[in-house]
Amino acid sequence: MENKSIVLDGKHLTIDEVVEIAREGVTVKIEESTMRIVEASRTLVYELANSDVPVYGFNRGVGLNKDREVVAKYYSEYNRNLILAHCVAVDPEASQEDVRAILLARLNTLLLGCTGIQPAIVTMYKDFLNHRIHPIIPERGSIGEGDITCLSHIGLAMIGEGEVYYQGVRMMAAEALEKAGLKPIVLGPKDGLAIVSSNALAAGPGAMVLKDAEDLVEMADIVYALTLEGFRGNVTPLDPKTYEVRPFPGQACSAEKVRKYLEGSYLWLPGVTESLQDPLSLRGSCQVHGSVRDALEYVKKYMDIQLNSSDDNPCVLLDEKRMISCSNYEVTTWVLGFEMLGIALSHLSRNACYRTIKLGTPKFTGLSRFLTPADTSVIAYGTIQKSFTSLDTEIRHLSNPATVDYYSLAGDIEDHANNSPFVVRKTAKILDNLYYILGMEAMHAVQAIDLRKATRLGKGTRTAYEVMRTEIPFLERDRNLSIDIKKAYNIVKSKAILKAVKEAVEDR
Amino acid sequence: MENKSIVLDGKHLTIDEVVEIAREGVTVKIEESTMRIVEASRTLVYELANSDVPVYGFNRGVGLNKDREVVAKYYSEYNRNLILAHCVAVDPEASQEDVRAILLARLNTLLLGCTGIQPAIVTMYKDFLNHRIHPIIPERGSIGEGDITCLSHIGLAMIGEGEVYYQGVRMMAAEALEKAGLKPIVLGPKDGLAIVSSNALAAGPGAMVLKDAEDLVEMADIVYALTLEGFRGNVTPLDPKTYEVRPFPGQACSAEKVRKYLEGSYLWLPGVTESLQDPLSLRGSCQVHGSVRDALEYVKKYMDIQLNSSDDNPCVLLDEKRMISCSNYEVTTWVLGFEMLGIALSHLSRNACYRTIKLGTPKFTGLSRFLTPADTSVIAYGTIQKSFTSLDTEIRHLSNPATVDYYSLAGDIEDHANNSPFVVRKTAKILDNLYYILGMEAMHAVQAIDLRKATRLGKGTRTAYEVMRTEIPFLERDRNLSIDIKKAYNIVKSKAILKAVKEAVEDR
Amino acid sequence: MENKSIVLDGKHLTIDEVVEIAREGVTVKIEESTMRIVEASRTLVYELANSDVPVYGFNRGVGLNKDREVVAKYYSEYNRNLILAHCVAVDPEASQEDVRAILLARLNTLLLGCTGIQPAIVTMYKDFLNHRIHPIIPERGSIGEGDITCLSHIGLAMIGEGEVYYQGVRMMAAEALEKAGLKPIVLGPKDGLAIVSSNALAAGPGAMVLKDAEDLVEMADIVYALTLEGFRGNVTPLDPKTYEVRPFPGQACSAEKVRKYLEGSYLWLPGVTESLQDPLSLRGSCQVHGSVRDALEYVKKYMDIQLNSSDDNPCVLLDEKRMISCSNYEVTTWVLGFEMLGIALSHLSRNACYRTIKLGTPKFTGLSRFLTPADTSVIAYGTIQKSFTSLDTEIRHLSNPATVDYYSLAGDIEDHANNSPFVVRKTAKILDNLYYILGMEAMHAVQAIDLRKATRLGKGTRTAYEVMRTEIPFLERDRNLSIDIKKAYNIVKSKAILKAVKEAVEDR
Amino acid sequence: MENKSIVLDGKHLTIDEVVEIAREGVTVKIEESTMRIVEASRTLVYELANSDVPVYGFNRGVGLNKDREVVAKYYSEYNRNLILAHCVAVDPEASQEDVRAILLARLNTLLLGCTGIQPAIVTMYKDFLNHRIHPIIPERGSIGEGDITCLSHIGLAMIGEGEVYYQGVRMMAAEALEKAGLKPIVLGPKDGLAIVSSNALAAGPGAMVLKDAEDLVEMADIVYALTLEGFRGNVTPLDPKTYEVRPFPGQACSAEKVRKYLEGSYLWLPGVTESLQDPLSLRGSCQVHGSVRDALEYVKKYMDIQLNSSDDNPCVLLDEKRMISCSNYEVTTWVLGFEMLGIALSHLSRNACYRTIKLGTPKFTGLSRFLTPADTSVIAYGTIQKSFTSLDTEIRHLSNPATVDYYSLAGDIEDHANNSPFVVRKTAKILDNLYYILGMEAMHAVQAIDLRKATRLGKGTRTAYEVMRTEIPFLERDRNLSIDIKKAYNIVKSKAILKAVKEAVEDR
Repeated sequence: MENKSIVLDGKHLTIDEVVEIAREGVTVKIEESTMRIVEASRTLVYELANSDVPVYGFNRGVGLNKDREVVAKYYSEYNRNLILAHCVAVDPEASQEDVRAILLARLNTLLLGCTGIQPAIVTMYKDFLNHRIHPIIPERGSIGEGDITCLSHIGLAMIGEGEVYYQGVRMMAAEALEKAGLKPIVLGPKDGLAIVSSNALAAGPGAMVLKDAEDLVEMADIVYALTLEGFRGNVTPLDPKTYEVRPFPGQACSAEKVRKYLEGSYLWLPGVTESLQDPLSLRGSCQVHGSVRDALEYVKKYMDIQLNSSDDNPCVLLDEKRMISCSNYEVTTWVLGFEMLGIALSHLSRNACYRTIKLGTPKFTGLSRFLTPADTSVIAYGTIQKSFTSLDTEIRHLSNPATVDYYSLAGDIEDHANNSPFVVRKTAKILDNLYYILGMEAMHAVQAIDLRKATRLGKGTRTAYEVMRTEIPFLERDRNLSIDIKKAYNIVKSKAILKAVKEAVEDR
Repeated sequence: MENKSIVLDGKHLTIDEVVEIAREGVTVKIEESTMRIVEASRTLVYELANSDVPVYGFNRGVGLNKDREVVAKYYSEYNRNLILAHCVAVDPEASQEDVRAILLARLNTLLLGCTGIQPAIVTMYKDFLNHRIHPIIPERGSIGEGDITCLSHIGLAMIGEGEVYYQGVRMMAAEALEKAGLKPIVLGPKDGLAIVSSNALAAGPGAMVLKDAEDLVEMADIVYALTLEGFRGNVTPLDPKTYEVRPFPGQACSAEKVRKYLEGSYLWLPGVTESLQDPLSLRGSCQVHGSVRDALEYVKKYMDIQLNSSDDNPCVLLDEKRMISCSNYEVTTWVLGFEMLGIALSHLSRNACYRTIKLGTPKFTGLSRFLTPADTSVIAYGTIQKSFTSLDTEIRHLSNPATVDYYSLAGDIEDHANNSPFVVRKTAKILDNLYYILGMEAMHAVQAIDLRKATRLGKGTRTAYEVMRTEIPFLERDRNLSIDIKKAYNIVKSKAILKAVKEAVEDR
Repeated sequence: MENKSIVLDGKHLTIDEVVEIAREGVTVKIEESTMRIVEASRTLVYELANSDVPVYGFNRGVGLNKDREVVAKYYSEYNRNLILAHCVAVDPEASQEDVRAILLARLNTLLLGCTGIQPAIVTMYKDFLNHRIHPIIPERGSIGEGDITCLSHIGLAMIGEGEVYYQGVRMMAAEALEKAGLKPIVLGPKDGLAIVSSNALAAGPGAMVLKDAEDLVEMADIVYALTLEGFRGNVTPLDPKTYEVRPFPGQACSAEKVRKYLEGSYLWLPGVTESLQDPLSLRGSCQVHGSVRDALEYVKKYMDIQLNSSDDNPCVLLDEKRMISCSNYEVTTWVLGFEMLGIALSHLSRNACYRTIKLGTPKFTGLSRFLTPADTSVIAYGTIQKSFTSLDTEIRHLSNPATVDYYSLAGDIEDHANNSPFVVRKTAKILDNLYYILGMEAMHAVQAIDLRKATRLGKGTRTAYEVMRTEIPFLERDRNLSIDIKKAYNIVKSKAILKAVKEAVEDR
Repeated sequence: MENKSIVLDGKHLTIDEVVEIAREGVTVKIEESTMRIVEASRTLVYELANSDVPVYGFNRGVGLNKDREVVAKYYSEYNRNLILAHCVAVDPEASQEDVRAILLARLNTLLLGCTGIQPAIVTMYKDFLNHRIHPIIPERGSIGEGDITCLSHIGLAMIGEGEVYYQGVRMMAAEALEKAGLKPIVLGPKDGLAIVSSNALAAGPGAMVLKDAEDLVEMADIVYALTLEGFRGNVTPLDPKTYEVRPFPGQACSAEKVRKYLEGSYLWLPGVTESLQDPLSLRGSCQVHGSVRDALEYVKKYMDIQLNSSDDNPCVLLDEKRMISCSNYEVTTWVLGFEMLGIALSHLSRNACYRTIKLGTPKFTGLSRFLTPADTSVIAYGTIQKSFTSLDTEIRHLSNPATVDYYSLAGDIEDHANNSPFVVRKTAKILDNLYYILGMEAMHAVQAIDLRKATRLGKGTRTAYEVMRTEIPFLERDRNLSIDIKKAYNIVKSKAILKAVKEAVEDR
């Protein structure tokens, strides 16, 4: 994908594109006309400042220091100080793909011309992405409401200080710039603030978390379908009519997908399922997965606004030739969405755990206890219940809200925050645990399928089955299952199972 | 309003109508044609049962007893047993307005013809509402996923057992039916299940909570506008342009309203506000209130589906002449929305608390400490900070999620739940606390306005000021403030301030 | 008990005595010599103030107003103002027994002579208790760290303002004082602060919550013993040797009690229990109950210090003839204990729920599903599982911590708090829910005993069985179980079952 | 320390010794006589098994498989299977010092002779510790109640499978055993269960967390003392008399230490502190730190029992020549203590944050805003407030309880758990964040001391000051503070500041 390039204009960046650029090495271009806007915006800011209007962060200090004047000859020094003083982030360091997403999220909103930043800096963001210069950004220390404590570390690299990864190798920023043929930025007025005052730290990685969450629900649908086959579950709840009667959108979407995955499965044969009603964890999976989809749709909608609108304060209004003081750094709406998403995923997680427990329960499956093979001296999938439920407990804990726990800071001026980066991070951890949980469910499902000797699988589930069985053989004798668990985790985390199944159901 | 009547057809019930019927004594009619559907549905169920199809809750037991056959001659006894056995709810008793909302929420969905209930029972719901027969329903004991433990108490009253309020007087159900000229229901097949298996306990009161939340945000906007005048706050953040640049819908809505409330205020005069940027709690109020609006919009959208679609299982498909087993009792999507709403309200609460603290802080207002009058021996609004922040602490606690904490029950068959009624109830408690908090903020705001001798108020805020000052005089000397607090609470809870201000801004 | 009288001296008040005085109408006397100390303390304070030492709350203001001088001629007015300005508490009103506990908790610590309060006020506390004059105290609004917002309402009554209950009748304070032949207090210096600055609002009711928690564990042990008999549970885990090997004190205590309750039970007969190991919820009950005991012991230890040491600031040191500024209002240690206790009770609750579920599960009991009687058309204890688990979900929610969620208030001076009253209140709610849960477990246990026709019960459990069966007959046919639930709740809440069983096991 | 050796006998292992052995390379010996007990215990188990008593995990299966007989000739195979089937732990891998603590915690309790394990395995634990053979143990996957999913990985290494670190180098277990001259174990009856059924995963690392928490409180006292000097805080609250009047033990301990650290400080000079009462965060620090000490004392007391008593089930009673089924794997008491400790640490954290904010606030300190140096264009410690409060927000989140969130597993037999390892891990994370927070407070304190030109420091604080200033120079100009933060973190985490100060105050 490295040859692909995406053109940015501040208005049309999608979550999928963030993933492509951040993870897959796609490069970026800046739509020509938008650079004109950036330049005009810069000019306007100078005009305003010269006309003696006090401008926060330009000819005035930031935060509580907003009452202090900054005179022109100290612009560069002041802005360098600002960058330095804001370098207060805390380890661990953001991953390189997160750094790319951060750079991108900031770059795109700069193109709206609301910042008044020096155009050379805008170009520098692009160059960092395309040359793979990735500043070291400790990822903790921001309370949302602008990730100023962390984004400063990008500014540091741009002025040739601090460290970066260049083409994957860690080195001093100055060295990387030289290697890439770039000159360090000389900061002008407002540049410091422009670099730090953005929600890019939460927004960039947050966008990727949403993509991962979306893929996860897809995979949960797949694994659920596989479980149905292992369980010999009743497919009545998939009846499309149900979803017409009760039109919650997410559940209809999941049910449609599950039906497709199960196309051709033995489950549709008459007389296969004897149970009038399966346990709720199986009967209502589409509903629960669908609720995650509904929640996700909410967050995505507002993340889209975040990625494509200015979070600058002050905000340059080019057409009206003025700057306004505002609260554009506020991201509470979509942070709340992440909190909801976390709770939704906690539901999905418990649902998956209960399904998996049911797969090991003879009275429901008619199969052996804990899916032991013929030789019942094998212990098989008994103890593993503790593994996946303990990860679910962690998810339950992570789903506790954190957005509202903030202080009044900066001389009591900054008395609201939302902890967006932390909320995004904990959502990412929830997803990571879910990769394990779904992986273990899939282990159970394919074991049950084998024990049941079910051969006529659905067109999607057959592929899912094969992906699993390629890595993890039938459990004939007890073995170190932590190895199987890790393999199953990787199959889900790498989305191998998703890609394969998607292809399978589209092919035919 | 008692003469007003609303016609129900299962498809068009709005949240506002729920409030009118439940709280304001509006009566209901059933759209003629829908009764035909209800009857046809009943007929179909009999046909299916006669043809020996096993039907959950009809000719088969419910829950784990789904494997037990119920033969025709025991229908009445079985269904009475079912009602009795499901009467396991726990105090406190639902308020009469909640009971009305519950009756209504169930009645409306019955009209969709998916239940197969005896038509006389449908009529009984209507009669209960119109005759003001309100069964005693203990409100706790349901885990969502159908509020079967509580709704059973309605069935009890319908068969002439248990207690009700009739025209506001508590009496035995049998007596009330007689007084109202109604005959007790003789339960037929599936009737027991049809009565209990619904989410009406959460949905009816939940709809009213949403209305209250909506009104609360309106009032938060009003009180915030009042605070701005007390604070002599900077109105720049209300600039409409901001909300074009960053188009989160809720915040634009709040800002527009606040601008309207402040129309004509001294705050718009040039040179009034000296501060370049006020504390975030004031600067970002529209953003925070807007985030509540965004969250609310999510829940309302799905509550609308809830109120107007069937949550029956099994579900009668009249057009296809069949019944399907499904998970229509699942309400996780909108329960998640309530959890998000609670967290959003927790943000709004903290925001209001910080604004109120700021009103008592001379360095921000230029007014006296704790808004003491001229005589500084008066202590005034110092200690009260503990009162409102302690209520905020309760809100923070209530905003912790509860939806995912459930058991696997009923012989391990019912292994999903969502605790919808509890989540709705805790949201209602959050709102009640907020009535106090906004009331106390308003007390501060009008005191600050008086101290500042600001006379030129906005067209909405002037009214709000008057509503407050009619009840609560200027604090000239220390007095028992708990009385003022209760008055301020009532002004908000009764929505007196909202009604007055709405009228004021519409009038002119 | 009304003739009993307890003598207070500031040093020996026990939790049991708090309960006797607050709930059972026991009156109080003040140990003679301690009144001498109180008087000496008052004299000292005057001496110090005259010598011009600035004394917080005496000749200086309180809170942020600590920089303001209060001159002698305004003492009375200033202190009345202080009382009024601190009357900012929020409904609901504290129960009369809570008010008594509050009065008592404050009275006892006043006797230590660290306050410097006017002796007549000390006597007034005693008179209020003995005449049953109970000021109306709204119970919310305090953040701990001194419950100044609520205790002020006691001062209000003492100066003859506000409302009280007098001998159970609500009336104006002035009227009650007159009826009781008491004169309103004229406040002198420091009196206002002395009345409000105490943790009595949390400590008094808190002490009673601890007593209730202690009784609850006793009852949990009893109900567990009953369950064992209904379940035909294995008594091996009660083996005293276990508790020697692993000497956690609480569990040994519970096991000893359970053994005593089961003395003579059929469970000890050889061959009775076939199961090698029962479910953990039964096998480990003594451990879980014991953990509550361990937690409780921690809180009680520190509550004892709270009840018998001064929480005054400033604190009068009579022997050293000086006053010191200190942080004696800090109660974080025992508030943390309450938080732990809440989590411990959440464990106990889940444990009881799982035991109860097991009682309805044939594969474990060998009895009928949901404990139906012979006629299996009876539904019996199926749906009720939702009732008790939904109450457990509330407990899980209540057990979330709240102590650390506070603001920086009072001009940023008061930047620590602990929310002690709220933490105490939520613990009380947990207990109330547990009365229901244990009641429902007991319903199951006696039904199982009857179904099993187990007649040879233990000497404690036999009595417990009878207490239950006197109120709640065998479930022969389905009936409105919410009535049974309420009865069972009352049996536990009133501690009837505890008293009866205690007597039974002591008798013989 | 590598030459030091600690003798284990199952009864006297202290938390400090766990730290020495796990972290400092101290080796272990087994008290001779205890090996006799181990051997006798093994013999007894064989006798019992031969007499046909069913013994859980010996001649019967474990968990739900407890109904399955295990015959003698399959002992080795069965136990190997058991080990393998229990290898279901999840990454990340435990640190090597944690692994040592785990090995030690299990070894010590084995010496009590309650296990009936093969004596050669006991020796193997010792050999692993002394040869530094550290099995790879993924640390997640246990729900407490015996850490069987993780401890299995030790068994794996003992039979020569899986991976280990040997002298710090990762290799196959078989290779390491060979290098160390050890033979793989051949498992006999009950050996598998004996290895896995223990709480050592939580107890070993848990003991170290307690040591770290204890050291942390010491350091919090030191940093607080430093802050007092930077703040020119009032030392009155340290008055020993206060702690006699109100004898909560922890706070008296902290106050005594702080007085010692401040011995000789300028703060004791008359007239130094003008403030009648400092902000609560400074005034009540000893109380808050003391509450952590009180909580800690609770946990330590029960951890001591955990380390020195058997958690075996079944439990061999050598003196009575029998085995009993019991619940010795229950650790709820001390897990609850960890939950309380986490909440206590959350208090300490908020307290430290507020102190640090106060240090940057001129109205309290009389120093410059954000502790800027003379040149006020320097921004200094403004933005850093976001860093430390964001870490506090994480702590608030981590302090939410997790112990009670468990499932009913293993065929519904295992329906209690406590999540001990997760609770221990989250406590460790709280501590790690606190290293940062205290580090940043110390940065502020020394900057304030320098700005104040306070030279006469206490005998402990002088050393603390020097430790800080050796690494982190005065902030004369803005610089990349994330580097300073990391240094300060390391000073606290490494306990350098603690060691130096301890030495300083002991010296003289």
